[in-house]
Amino acid sequence: MRVRYVWIPVLIAVISVPIGFYYVDWSKSGDGAGLYSRSWQPEAVFAYWNPEDFYVSVDSVIGEFSGEQCIDCHQGVTPGIVNDWRKSRHSKPADDQNAVYCSDCHGSNHEDLHLPSPEICGGCHADQHNQFVDEKRYGFPSHALAMERALDAKHFADKPKAEVTACLQCHSVATKCDSCHTRHLFSAAEARRPEACLTCHSGPPHPDDETYFNSKHGELYLAEGENWDWSKPLRKGNYPAPTCAYCHMDEGKHQVANKSIWKFGIKQINPLTSGNEVKRKQWIKLCADCHEKDWSADRLKEMDAERKTAWNKLYRAEDILKSLRSDNLIYPSAKERPPYPTDSADDLIQYEHVGFFEGQASAFYNVSAIERDYFEMWYFDNLAAYKGSAHGDISFANKGHAAMDSSLEKIKHKAEKIRTLGKAEKNEARKNNGHQEHPGKLWFNGEYTEYNRDHN
Amino acid sequence: MRVRYVWIPVLIAVISVPIGFYYVDWSKSGDGAGLYSRSWQPEAVFAYWNPEDFYVSVDSVIGEFSGEQCIDCHQGVTPGIVNDWRKSRHSKPADDQNAVYCSDCHGSNHEDLHLPSPEICGGCHADQHNQFVDEKRYGFPSHALAMERALDAKHFADKPKAEVTACLQCHSVATKCDSCHTRHLFSAAEARRPEACLTCHSGPPHPDDETYFNSKHGELYLAEGENWDWSKPLRKGNYPAPTCAYCHMDEGKHQVANKSIWKFGIKQINPLTSGNEVKRKQWIKLCADCHEKDWSADRLKEMDAERKTAWNKLYRAEDILKSLRSDNLIYPSAKERPPYPTDSADDLIQYEHVGFFEGQASAFYNVSAIERDYFEMWYFDNLAAYKGSAHGDISFANKGHAAMDSSLEKIKHKAEKIRTLGKAEKNEARKNNGHQEHPGKLWFNGEYTEYNRDHN
Amino acid sequence: MRVRYVWIPVLIAVISVPIGFYYVDWSKSGDGAGLYSRSWQPEAVFAYWNPEDFYVSVDSVIGEFSGEQCIDCHQGVTPGIVNDWRKSRHSKPADDQNAVYCSDCHGSNHEDLHLPSPEICGGCHADQHNQFVDEKRYGFPSHALAMERALDAKHFADKPKAEVTACLQCHSVATKCDSCHTRHLFSAAEARRPEACLTCHSGPPHPDDETYFNSKHGELYLAEGENWDWSKPLRKGNYPAPTCAYCHMDEGKHQVANKSIWKFGIKQINPLTSGNEVKRKQWIKLCADCHEKDWSADRLKEMDAERKTAWNKLYRAEDILKSLRSDNLIYPSAKERPPYPTDSADDLIQYEHVGFFEGQASAFYNVSAIERDYFEMWYFDNLAAYKGSAHGDISFANKGHAAMDSSLEKIKHKAEKIRTLGKAEKNEARKNNGHQEHPGKLWFNGEYTEYNRDHN
Repeated sequence: MRVRYVWIPVLIAVISVPIGFYYVDWSKSGDGAGLYSRSWQPEAVFAYWNPEDFYVSVDSVIGEFSGEQCIDCHQGVTPGIVNDWRKSRHSKPADDQNAVYCSDCHGSNHEDLHLPSPEICGGCHADQHNQFVDEKRYGFPSHALAMERALDAKHFADKPKAEVTACLQCHSVATKCDSCHTRHLFSAAEARRPEACLTCHSGPPHPDDETYFNSKHGELYLAEGENWDWSKPLRKGNYPAPTCAYCHMDEGKHQVANKSIWKFGIKQINPLTSGNEVKRKQWIKLCADCHEKDWSADRLKEMDAERKTAWNKLYRAEDILKSLRSDNLIYPSAKERPPYPTDSADDLIQYEHVGFFEGQASAFYNVSAIERDYFEMWYFDNLAAYKGSAHGDISFANKGHAAMDSSLEKIKHKAEKIRTLGKAEKNEARKNNGHQEHPGKLWFNGEYTEYNRDHN
Repeated sequence: MRVRYVWIPVLIAVISVPIGFYYVDWSKSGDGAGLYSRSWQPEAVFAYWNPEDFYVSVDSVIGEFSGEQCIDCHQGVTPGIVNDWRKSRHSKPADDQNAVYCSDCHGSNHEDLHLPSPEICGGCHADQHNQFVDEKRYGFPSHALAMERALDAKHFADKPKAEVTACLQCHSVATKCDSCHTRHLFSAAEARRPEACLTCHSGPPHPDDETYFNSKHGELYLAEGENWDWSKPLRKGNYPAPTCAYCHMDEGKHQVANKSIWKFGIKQINPLTSGNEVKRKQWIKLCADCHEKDWSADRLKEMDAERKTAWNKLYRAEDILKSLRSDNLIYPSAKERPPYPTDSADDLIQYEHVGFFEGQASAFYNVSAIERDYFEMWYFDNLAAYKGSAHGDISFANKGHAAMDSSLEKIKHKAEKIRTLGKAEKNEARKNNGHQEHPGKLWFNGEYTEYNRDHN
Repeated sequence: MRVRYVWIPVLIAVISVPIGFYYVDWSKSGDGAGLYSRSWQPEAVFAYWNPEDFYVSVDSVIGEFSGEQCIDCHQGVTPGIVNDWRKSRHSKPADDQNAVYCSDCHGSNHEDLHLPSPEICGGCHADQHNQFVDEKRYGFPSHALAMERALDAKHFADKPKAEVTACLQCHSVATKCDSCHTRHLFSAAEARRPEACLTCHSGPPHPDDETYFNSKHGELYLAEGENWDWSKPLRKGNYPAPTCAYCHMDEGKHQVANKSIWKFGIKQINPLTSGNEVKRKQWIKLCADCHEKDWSADRLKEMDAERKTAWNKLYRAEDILKSLRSDNLIYPSAKERPPYPTDSADDLIQYEHVGFFEGQASAFYNVSAIERDYFEMWYFDNLAAYKGSAHGDISFANKGHAAMDSSLEKIKHKAEKIRTLGKAEKNEARKNNGHQEHPGKLWFNGEYTEYNRDHN
């Protein structure tokens, strides 16, 4: 390339970079927040789940107030939270520290109060905040990326707001600290107990609550935990049995993403990569606080085996779906599915279709019934098996595998019927005024397409 | 009307009013209790669930005993309950009060003992009893009407006694106080804890237990509740987090029916009637013990939205059923269903049929399979969604909605098949010795008709 | 018979007895343990679940150590378990006893350590061990026979090891004492609490956990148990409400098999045999620690009624299956099922087939879909109903019965379809390359036959 043509890429950059910035700025300038803010408006309650973007101060009281004044008035208005604060270390700091008052976190102008972001807490608690932010290096799943990676996504713009609110309630762990340290006691002792985690980590698809409490570890906590000294750090010798935080946040580290081998059970991973061998050693070291190292290594191998069995079952189901698809028997097919509301049907480039084959996260909705069966097998049955296996609740793992067996049988059975009756049904459905009454209809044009396009 | 004919209505009244009284008296004079007592005999254990009507005193010991004598003997026979009493305020009253002994509540003649009714407890605890009885003004659901409105009903006379016993175990909250204040400590502190409620308020169709404990409120209770001072009244500032009773029985009021906006999620209500606006203000005031008023108002609006979405799903299912019905494809149809056992098939007036279209409460049984699907969608999935929404367990609400989506898909699918195959199947079934082997048979003539008519 | 021929049976015995002993010895000389040891290899973790047969000592440390030396070193290596021991009675014995050190139970040669068997614990705790062993007289279900009767069985040799490990986790209650008395506190107080039982006794098919905690007994434990004095023996008057152990191990007896009337709900039993009348009296005596005897007797009668209803439902399902079978419509039929891996297909005697009709325990796998439905109705729905009924959680019992009703409807529906379409499907399946794509395939040649024969 001749040197004088160097101006061509430079010119392109000079033009396209500002356009890029303008576009991002424009797309963020909707009424909401995030990449899809122009396509989607928040619910009122988002002010509390994502306060930095949406909270608007109460302005029924005007004026500037000192911390002591806040306390004086709120002792009468909301005594519970003032009582909590009085018991907290914020009100009774060590000798060389100042008390932390309401106004230090919420501001002192009552017309311009804010709810504290992680950055505000990080002003004093820098180590914890840095560890928390460090999770981003490990990708998702992680607490720190729970909003921007999981919720600020194309297929979320296609959901009813009420449901996104539901997701947000837990995923707001990324935007505020009181998911674990409940206000206004903000007790480290509380956050060390498993209950701090279970509001989010319970039920499908992540029955951490159920599987921990059914394990021998959980049993000991339930029977005796009330007498343990929760003021102690999460460290070898301090607790008779481990809790969620003891293992996942050992030594109080606010970084839970750097020890995850199987990534929540969502993807098949190679458990023996060098990265995972490092993580495995961390786990064995941790388990050796109480157990023989051999025992711990064996349990991890058991989990490898359990995961391999689980993925064999999932792949058998996927093969059936792929075979149906290659024979054009999945209905609606990927091409017949509606576009995302953020896409325009008459875009110059072909719109992206919703559905299993375009990524598992979008397989929740707008897919055929048999694809939904696969989704449930993968997301609910498989993850239940994983969590049971990971937390020492083997009967839960067995239930998950029994459910996978049963789902696989169902999928086989449906596939067989689709092969026998499928074409006839499809023709019938097309005749009947488009897709009316077709079993796949709910996912095709239910809550998550027509309705939302009108109401989000 | 000429004045002299005034004797005609007077005569009718003079004749019919005594006949009416006689009829009611006659119908109550069966071996049981309630309107259907002649059609239905109680189980032995009813003596304990509904003691006023059915309890018969132990007579193995004879004689009259003073309270002190009761204690002396029962310390050896049943020491646990005596120990409870010794710890109770009944045994250690304030200075100006007398101790309350066994005999004060159970009587002193050992051959004629009784189990205390709410009226007996109300003899001392008049405020609480009056509040409890006041619930009747608000209709059902309410504790005070749990027996006479929910159990003394035509379709209950059609159920196996074992199952009615099951209902009675919880619905006996109307007929005795120890559902919440367990004997013989009768501690207010105990009744303030959520466990007092969860024996009944758990599991489908009312997972109050599960949804509370998964909420942040419940988390705080689980992690720290053992250190709260439960002797304090349920009042602003006394508790770090609310319990069932804190919100539903604030200030210890024994009236829980006067704050219910959505009526348990069973019916679609207009949340914005003036009555409900009053209730809404009561809730916002209560939530403001700890939360911003805006926040509370938003949460109630979210519940309105969740309920609207839920009812849209239910109405879509109902539309499918109505359409099948109008095309005479529901089998057994309402007219083909068996009469209640309390009706006679050869009554002069046409008997009432069991089934969805005659009222939801009777849709449990004796309906077609697709109607049962609707029932389960309404009673289990919908109410799970409601309770999750009401108690701040959003993931439970989501599970309920996912289940409703899935049920709706199932109903659509079944309806499609019924339309395609229904008539052929129906003809087949009618040929085969009446209804033999028809899938709807279980609900048609299963546990709840032929068997019961012979055994109740 | 002439006397001189007496040498014939003697000769047979002389030949066959040594052969028999040789055969048993040979069959046990595989790499595993138990009757099927030659057909089946253990997982590494079995060393911990069944230590006497499989544990191999850690040998990274060499030498002989006294108890004090164990403590000195392990205080640094595994402080948690040393702390537990320091709190235990083993470290602080009564005046006339010696302390029990690590080496007393695990041995003192670090290259030849062992995990303590029940016999080792029984060396000091003879009464408890004798009671435990005495359970064997009552057959299975019982703790003492949980391994040899339930796991050392032909159909277990046919299972994937990962799943047998799962079974073993709980069934290892027969081979080690720390299932209930967790190491190294070994506190009787802990074992008296329900949590000691719930690691195993929870979830399907034995929701003891769920049903106890939903009962009024469990409610009292949850609300107040933290303040009870758990150092007291399980005896009348010592506890305000009963726990698992209070009723099933009254007076601390380590024999739980001699009071079981309904045998876990697995078989229909006659509740009125003389043996069961004796057990019934034991229960009534126990309940009378707090309740009226009449009340207790009525509750047991209620359970009889519930069980009768449950078995009526199960027999209706069995009748459907038997009828399909006699018409040769069950596919794969018993004769078409694969042999156990411990059998040889070319055995001189006909191999035993897996499946419902050869015993319920083998109906888990390798059966037709409709037989699997029956299995789930029997094992999950029926046992849920039983446990709800037995533990005073009537709503759980109701859920179980509703599930049985629903399963029965499903079985009827499937049977009807099999009768209509069955022969056509079967012919179709046989044409398609053997059994390919047949819905029953999973159970026929899934996880539990081909794969296992290659990998166990």
